[in-house]
Amino acid sequence: MVDPAQKHLVIVGGGFAGLYAAKHLKNTNLRITLIDRRNFHLFQPLLYQVATGGLSPGDIAYPLRAVLKGNPRAHVIQDKVVDVLPDQKRVVLREGGELSFDYLLLATGVRHQYFGNEHWSDAAPGLKTIEDALEVRRRILSAFEEAERTEDPERRKYLLRFVIVGAGPTGVELAGALGELAHYTMRRNFRTIDPADAEVILVEGSDRVLPPYAPVLSAKAQRALEKLGVTVMSGTRVTDISSNTITLQRGDGEPESLAAGTVLWAAGVKATAFGRRVAEQTGAETDRAGRIKVTPELTIPGHPYIYVLGDLAHIEQKNGNLVPGVAPAAMQMGKYAAKAVAARLAGKEPAPFRYFDKGSMAVIGRNAAIAQIANLKLSGFPAWMIWAFIHIHFLIEFGNKMVVSMQWGWNYFTRKRGARLITGKFTPNPD
Amino acid sequence: MVDPAQKHLVIVGGGFAGLYAAKHLKNTNLRITLIDRRNFHLFQPLLYQVATGGLSPGDIAYPLRAVLKGNPRAHVIQDKVVDVLPDQKRVVLREGGELSFDYLLLATGVRHQYFGNEHWSDAAPGLKTIEDALEVRRRILSAFEEAERTEDPERRKYLLRFVIVGAGPTGVELAGALGELAHYTMRRNFRTIDPADAEVILVEGSDRVLPPYAPVLSAKAQRALEKLGVTVMSGTRVTDISSNTITLQRGDGEPESLAAGTVLWAAGVKATAFGRRVAEQTGAETDRAGRIKVTPELTIPGHPYIYVLGDLAHIEQKNGNLVPGVAPAAMQMGKYAAKAVAARLAGKEPAPFRYFDKGSMAVIGRNAAIAQIANLKLSGFPAWMIWAFIHIHFLIEFGNKMVVSMQWGWNYFTRKRGARLITGKFTPNPD
Repeated sequence: MVDPAQKHLVIVGGGFAGLYAAKHLKNTNLRITLIDRRNFHLFQPLLYQVATGGLSPGDIAYPLRAVLKGNPRAHVIQDKVVDVLPDQKRVVLREGGELSFDYLLLATGVRHQYFGNEHWSDAAPGLKTIEDALEVRRRILSAFEEAERTEDPERRKYLLRFVIVGAGPTGVELAGALGELAHYTMRRNFRTIDPADAEVILVEGSDRVLPPYAPVLSAKAQRALEKLGVTVMSGTRVTDISSNTITLQRGDGEPESLAAGTVLWAAGVKATAFGRRVAEQTGAETDRAGRIKVTPELTIPGHPYIYVLGDLAHIEQKNGNLVPGVAPAAMQMGKYAAKAVAARLAGKEPAPFRYFDKGSMAVIGRNAAIAQIANLKLSGFPAWMIWAFIHIHFLIEFGNKMVVSMQWGWNYFTRKRGARLITGKFTPNPD
Repeated sequence: MVDPAQKHLVIVGGGFAGLYAAKHLKNTNLRITLIDRRNFHLFQPLLYQVATGGLSPGDIAYPLRAVLKGNPRAHVIQDKVVDVLPDQKRVVLREGGELSFDYLLLATGVRHQYFGNEHWSDAAPGLKTIEDALEVRRRILSAFEEAERTEDPERRKYLLRFVIVGAGPTGVELAGALGELAHYTMRRNFRTIDPADAEVILVEGSDRVLPPYAPVLSAKAQRALEKLGVTVMSGTRVTDISSNTITLQRGDGEPESLAAGTVLWAAGVKATAFGRRVAEQTGAETDRAGRIKVTPELTIPGHPYIYVLGDLAHIEQKNGNLVPGVAPAAMQMGKYAAKAVAARLAGKEPAPFRYFDKGSMAVIGRNAAIAQIANLKLSGFPAWMIWAFIHIHFLIEFGNKMVVSMQWGWNYFTRKRGARLITGKFTPNPD
């Protein structure tokens, strides 16, 4: 079945970069193998919606096989790549032996990191996988349930205090969604507590929320958050987190401890162990976060047949800024790699990768978002409309458009969040 | 806040019976407390759709608080009732101390049972909770993934063999959905295997599928299953199940072992430990499955203020048959108990419960269902339409109608199953 003249391209990771590469290689004669530990592509920008009960996992994840079923040369394997042997042009799989390649695209992404305090992870979970999101959802909803049950006002206050560390897009979106949940969605749902009494505190080390945006947009985002009852503590560092306390330091002040029932982590990412292993095996340089420094063609220096794409790649734009770790950049890299490999198969030399910044946006709540598109700065309802339109547009490709847009329409008009389920860690009666 | 003259009604269990009781008590002056271990109502008749990737958990579960938020006298507590003290009119909670009641409605349902072979449960999981369904989904989808990966044809055959024990409605619906998944939904999704090669075997002890139905409908259901590639083995008993083998005995023949990668259990239910405890404390009689024998007013003999509703209740119809353990019966019991309590508060004597059999139905796949409504026997597309209409109608009340009907419409026309995610038991990189 395998044509020996046919070149084999292996993609590791079915995120935006890997999937876009696979889709754009459809018309080449390459044999393609996409390897992912999971059987689905995850639309990570909406993961915070799962964590706050607005969407179900199935709404933002789609089977990789279904996405690629139209390309009979594309083979999907659910497995984990544990090693890359660059000189032998082979990858080692955990379950399925080894696989040789002619071209290799590495797009395994990043994990959240605790900057040397990895022991904080149980007390302050991050948000990268479906399981992370369901665990966060469980914690948030259980806190309200226990607060309704308890008769101790101190404990109630503790349970209804939510601290989110990091005011990048994920932190801001989580805080906004939590604010909406407490102030609108769960209104009249409780009899002992008023969910609007929940304190949502957003902690940020720099001097404002969403630091990469223009200061005027940061200010608008902060105001929108405050309208939803969120307290923004900028210029504040986290010095310790334990299972029920977070210690914060404002500027050069004394560290202060705050009892909080739920602490969520949205403050920084780093490459996985696999990324570090690749760097080791190829002699590639990495940055502080462990991302691999690539050539202008997105390959590893000295290994022109190994591409690194998406969040795992460290590459500068012309203006000296790094290409950001966002979905549009990953999609562009995936598409670029597909075209570059196709060009090389045709004997041509591909042009270097150029990142086209389509702008960036973050959503705070219903009707509230900010967007920065070239010199255009938008906020409020127009920004929210653009945000919703773009996200639904991209979900089309993964086949979930109808459900998500419908669910959103429904949530929008009713402010309902139907997926408010506490699942996992549940043991039925032992008999 | 508590009016001492106001009577307190406690409902244990937020299934169909408990929830319908709560909803129909809206206009009384009773204080109502609904206690459930979960924070959501589960639309159990569609659980098999979650197990086969057709719907997400959020599509068939709805927060109890949201359902009851319109009734300010209804209080929801997420907790587990561990004991009932009938003489003191109190229930004991696992987390929240004790609660006194004037009326008590027990509607905690049943669990699946293995008829003395409870050690089969790991090898052959049943389908009663969201977690059960996600575990079944994980096993089914992982089997196809591993079959695609393996190069050993014997192992492939083993992995693609699915045995379902019990051909009641759950077993038939599971087998049909698995047949559709293999023959339609996953077509062209694999490169090494053909998912249509999967063997789906439905084992039933009695002489036909869906034994409570008219024989002509059983025959139609069997034909519809066979069209989807399901092999029906009626008159066959299970004598043993281990992690990779099931032993079957046809009639009086020799037991034969069959290697099967996935075995699912849909063969019988029994009361939980809590149900047995209630029987102990009240001196109530139970049947072989542990269900509590109730008076014609659905109360425990000698305890006229304790009602037993839904699957946990054992009560005969006029024709001598038991009221079946189905959702419509539970709804009717919940509504009856609400009216009976309201009547008693008004000093009236309620009439005995009468079960109105609205008919029953089971669905096999797209366009294929059977329905028996009084003397009317339907099959094929008309039965399927009625089935879909009724299920969507009841989901309206739980606020999920729009999403589910949309998702169904989408699945119907495309035969897609978007929620085909393998989740749980996933550990990301250890760093």
